[in-house]
Amino acid sequence: MANDNLTAILYGINDIRLEQTPIEEPDQDEVLIKMACVGICGSDVHYLVNGRIGDFVVRKPMIIGHESSGVVVKLGKNVKNLKVGDRVAIEPGVSCRTCKFCKEGRYNLCKDMVFCATPPVHGNLRRFYKHAADFCFKLPDNVTLAEGALLEPLSVGVHACKRANIGIGSKVLILGAGPIGLLSLLVAKAMGASKIVIIDLTQSRLNLAKKLGADATLLVKKEDAESDILKRIIELVGEEPDKTIDACGAQSMIRLAILATRSGGVAVLVGMGAPEVQVPLMNALVREVDIRGVFRYANDYPDALNLLATEKIDVKPLITHNYKLEDTVQAFETSKSGQADVVKIMIHCN
Amino acid sequence: MANDNLTAILYGINDIRLEQTPIEEPDQDEVLIKMACVGICGSDVHYLVNGRIGDFVVRKPMIIGHESSGVVVKLGKNVKNLKVGDRVAIEPGVSCRTCKFCKEGRYNLCKDMVFCATPPVHGNLRRFYKHAADFCFKLPDNVTLAEGALLEPLSVGVHACKRANIGIGSKVLILGAGPIGLLSLLVAKAMGASKIVIIDLTQSRLNLAKKLGADATLLVKKEDAESDILKRIIELVGEEPDKTIDACGAQSMIRLAILATRSGGVAVLVGMGAPEVQVPLMNALVREVDIRGVFRYANDYPDALNLLATEKIDVKPLITHNYKLEDTVQAFETSKSGQADVVKIMIHCN
Amino acid sequence: MANDNLTAILYGINDIRLEQTPIEEPDQDEVLIKMACVGICGSDVHYLVNGRIGDFVVRKPMIIGHESSGVVVKLGKNVKNLKVGDRVAIEPGVSCRTCKFCKEGRYNLCKDMVFCATPPVHGNLRRFYKHAADFCFKLPDNVTLAEGALLEPLSVGVHACKRANIGIGSKVLILGAGPIGLLSLLVAKAMGASKIVIIDLTQSRLNLAKKLGADATLLVKKEDAESDILKRIIELVGEEPDKTIDACGAQSMIRLAILATRSGGVAVLVGMGAPEVQVPLMNALVREVDIRGVFRYANDYPDALNLLATEKIDVKPLITHNYKLEDTVQAFETSKSGQADVVKIMIHCN
Amino acid sequence: MANDNLTAILYGINDIRLEQTPIEEPDQDEVLIKMACVGICGSDVHYLVNGRIGDFVVRKPMIIGHESSGVVVKLGKNVKNLKVGDRVAIEPGVSCRTCKFCKEGRYNLCKDMVFCATPPVHGNLRRFYKHAADFCFKLPDNVTLAEGALLEPLSVGVHACKRANIGIGSKVLILGAGPIGLLSLLVAKAMGASKIVIIDLTQSRLNLAKKLGADATLLVKKEDAESDILKRIIELVGEEPDKTIDACGAQSMIRLAILATRSGGVAVLVGMGAPEVQVPLMNALVREVDIRGVFRYANDYPDALNLLATEKIDVKPLITHNYKLEDTVQAFETSKSGQADVVKIMIHCN
Repeated sequence: MANDNLTAILYGINDIRLEQTPIEEPDQDEVLIKMACVGICGSDVHYLVNGRIGDFVVRKPMIIGHESSGVVVKLGKNVKNLKVGDRVAIEPGVSCRTCKFCKEGRYNLCKDMVFCATPPVHGNLRRFYKHAADFCFKLPDNVTLAEGALLEPLSVGVHACKRANIGIGSKVLILGAGPIGLLSLLVAKAMGASKIVIIDLTQSRLNLAKKLGADATLLVKKEDAESDILKRIIELVGEEPDKTIDACGAQSMIRLAILATRSGGVAVLVGMGAPEVQVPLMNALVREVDIRGVFRYANDYPDALNLLATEKIDVKPLITHNYKLEDTVQAFETSKSGQADVVKIMIHCN
Repeated sequence: MANDNLTAILYGINDIRLEQTPIEEPDQDEVLIKMACVGICGSDVHYLVNGRIGDFVVRKPMIIGHESSGVVVKLGKNVKNLKVGDRVAIEPGVSCRTCKFCKEGRYNLCKDMVFCATPPVHGNLRRFYKHAADFCFKLPDNVTLAEGALLEPLSVGVHACKRANIGIGSKVLILGAGPIGLLSLLVAKAMGASKIVIIDLTQSRLNLAKKLGADATLLVKKEDAESDILKRIIELVGEEPDKTIDACGAQSMIRLAILATRSGGVAVLVGMGAPEVQVPLMNALVREVDIRGVFRYANDYPDALNLLATEKIDVKPLITHNYKLEDTVQAFETSKSGQADVVKIMIHCN
Repeated sequence: MANDNLTAILYGINDIRLEQTPIEEPDQDEVLIKMACVGICGSDVHYLVNGRIGDFVVRKPMIIGHESSGVVVKLGKNVKNLKVGDRVAIEPGVSCRTCKFCKEGRYNLCKDMVFCATPPVHGNLRRFYKHAADFCFKLPDNVTLAEGALLEPLSVGVHACKRANIGIGSKVLILGAGPIGLLSLLVAKAMGASKIVIIDLTQSRLNLAKKLGADATLLVKKEDAESDILKRIIELVGEEPDKTIDACGAQSMIRLAILATRSGGVAVLVGMGAPEVQVPLMNALVREVDIRGVFRYANDYPDALNLLATEKIDVKPLITHNYKLEDTVQAFETSKSGQADVVKIMIHCN
Repeated sequence: MANDNLTAILYGINDIRLEQTPIEEPDQDEVLIKMACVGICGSDVHYLVNGRIGDFVVRKPMIIGHESSGVVVKLGKNVKNLKVGDRVAIEPGVSCRTCKFCKEGRYNLCKDMVFCATPPVHGNLRRFYKHAADFCFKLPDNVTLAEGALLEPLSVGVHACKRANIGIGSKVLILGAGPIGLLSLLVAKAMGASKIVIIDLTQSRLNLAKKLGADATLLVKKEDAESDILKRIIELVGEEPDKTIDACGAQSMIRLAILATRSGGVAVLVGMGAPEVQVPLMNALVREVDIRGVFRYANDYPDALNLLATEKIDVKPLITHNYKLEDTVQAFETSKSGQADVVKIMIHCN
């Protein structure tokens, strides 16, 4: 029905409701999108369970969802880069375009960023949603709308691998085989990394990592000694890794990232964890191991899309569960469950 | 025979002779190598035909050969990184290790470089040859000695692609499908380039490029108009290429490199040509197309070797002809002939 | 008078007229500026004399002027970074903010750039002018409006020196002691260059360079042999310069930039000249001398302003002539005259 | 006396003795140096008081001293860059020249580094000492031998400022006004930093910082609240600093480095402290504040020397105390005393 705009709204902790909301009118530089796919991100679940992430607090009902794709159904009057019917991936943050960060190309650090489903900004898990046209990326025929939604976490992986400066010959250690770790693995391979070792607590995720191309995997237990894990890492990599990507955020993993990386290498931190950690920072200092954080992405959607369009990587095996928009509550229940076989849950909006 | 050290010596223009020379004794940081494979490079042929390259003049008999591999048969007393029996690729230039260039990591620019078969330094097309141990790279079991010899031009390709800063998403134009162009193609692919178009005057070389993974090829004729070639390039790439690698050196190709590359992109010049050229430099200036030369390589052998060891690329199809050391003169005749089917000629020393 | 908007309009070759134009109303993100100072740039004179620069042709009457400053008199409704009464320098190009170049921080390469006094876009040599608020930079009390106008060419110098990657220890050669050469000299000194040598055909300009801090100057004549000039450069620098900035554009100077720069150094080209030049490009290739163009500036106004605000450099000696807006025709006559004592002409609008 | 080679030997904790040692003969690539000045470094005192720094333990008597200069008195047979009588600064670490780090230009990370007065390698606080000629830098007439000795900590400051990527416009926060903090201040100014704020616990050191050119100083007490210090930093800098250099090593200062630096900025850690620290690493992650350690220096002596030779900076005010070699024990007593007025102690060897 033309006026159906079923929408998933987070009212508070563990309280998602499906309701009708008005369909918005695109501004002159925007397009209206009939939403297709929205993936569930760890941050969505975090808001659902805790009502906040750090200083971002859900104070009033907020539409959830930000890993998304859809089909353009209406154009703002100035829009030239798209046409009605285009299938697009949606980069969910629109920056101010005028601050120092935006002008210098690091718009992910823009303090006036308007980012889907980061309070108080609404997300796009609904039937229809309008968005800045230049932050929509047209999908070629060989890229599905579900893959388009996966461009969001894939862009995080691209940003992480660029921050790590991965290239041919890189020996890469990835900590954590969740979606970001696995997507970073795919990107690192596409960039020519010569060896990739990935660590996780769950064997089924490591099996998927192996299937996706990891050269070696290491199953660890929480009680394993740091020095033992380090020794096993060096054995598996064959030497100290040049680059380490922590896609986990736990203190124990951040410590490994610092200690395992070779002198002059880079430890990239993507995984969010406790605000404060105890780390062997002097070890990084005297070996000049650079520590670089990753916050979302900037100018990474085009490269992420290229990887799919040229079929250099295949992200489809990450989608383990699919739900209809109507079943959003159940989808989030599955996501919260922490089942070992859940990697990425995709919600289909139409 | 233990004392057999048959050696290919360039006496002058079109005058290569095979003679016995003394087997040298390795110094404390050197190894003696029983030579296995030596590829013929365009520069070798240039010295043979012209007796010089620029300011480098063959003034007295010079042993030829520098794309090489072999087996370690004797160690200098300080050598620790190798052992007798190791199969090695030989990086043919040994730098001074003390100048500003060496200390800053750009040792290819060292003014006291001692480089095989660059007058007056002897090359290594012989049975036995000694070399600095740290410029010998041990080959793993899955890399053949012929591939080891190909590490030399492959390292040029690696250096060119690094200078071009090729990465995922790069649209790459390669001018010239000779060994350097083809090897750059392989490296660019390994680095994640999303599209690679290659140009040449010879269809058979373009066929090989296609087989090696070029996304598109363009056969040009000397009389083609510059504007026409440019138009066809843009069509094939789909847009202006981000990076162009000129592996040819002709003025017409350097011009294309400047004109075709997108604003803010990089035109890398590898191919040697006439000392002076007429070029549309203002076009590069106003579009900030960076122009970067490539002189040999520095710190590129390890990455080149990694590409072979991990089987990310296959360089064997480039070897179109094989000769014994005893048939060196004939090998060079073939090389000089300019037959379309000659890509890389390999001479086997033992 | 409130409605006085005397405006300098270029009608065609050697035809500048002063006429009244309507005062524009600022859009929501713009400010209306009571213009204070507008410097005459070489490009302005070029349009006056030739009616075009390359593909940019003055096809209909165009307001001239782009090196400018003024006082904010009215705010668009969204403007927050400025207030009425603020004295501002005006960065004269407003980019599209949505293309790849804009998002990546190289907005000077934006193909939809709207740049003052580049046909068909009007400039700002008038009493009142409106401009995007975020491209206006508030001047602190210790920076005059005339200096504010000079931020424009100073930003070119900043961009050139950044492209050259000048830092402590750099030995810098500057070709041409016009405004851009002289401003690059000041910036290079502020960046810590350890030696700066500057070349020109005119002794009075070199005298000014010396006064501004050049370590050495070299007066050359058009008929001087290239090899002689090169020898004198090396003598004056004490070795080959690390960085060369060509602020001239003549073929002879571009050649020197390539030949003089040390191996591994950078030759930055700022000066516009003939579309085609004959250059010893192989010399740059084999010594890996990078050639980088400079097109205007991007994100350089803040740094240029900082240099003035902190009084690290003094640009006032460059202003050799001052005119009222009413005397614009005469100001351009002086500029065209090519008198040796003309460096920068400033027109005062109010 | 020709055979006098009085030498300061660290026998164990708080046990320095002056004894005669044999004068060594320079190898072919070395020079013999009549030592002039040796500064006392915090690490020297640390070995004296604790007998170790981390894994480096003084297990047998070790000659102390590494911030040094002298006069060449004898040349190894291959030495060409120096002649007898040259006054030189001595870069105290000689790297292996063959490993990946050395070849890539980051020789400070070389695992086979031979570094003066780092156990078990002897230092050079003696009358005569031999050293690799290419790690000796000839001083011009206007640089004193005491300044030459100060090149060592100055090179640490250069390395820190380069790692921070300081340039024109940089707002710099320096934590700690000891020798490294003060020298970093001088270097940051020479690189064009537009504002430098420095913090310390001691007013007299801040007074010296002010004299050396700090734009503002902040006296803090150990009991000051982190949030209060942060607020005062922002007030003094005028905004968040782009770059922070921690020249202190205390956990409280490392925390400030992370928290104070603006998004996208760089926190450089030079000061050595406890192996483990508790830090707000997530804050750095989400704001992409890069954390980079500094270990000694690589290729920084030439730039440090240039700063002195061109008189861009004056390091002499840092030398607060002078002793003769014969009074070494007393010099170290003063150094250990922790008196507020001690900045750099210089020992004169001849």
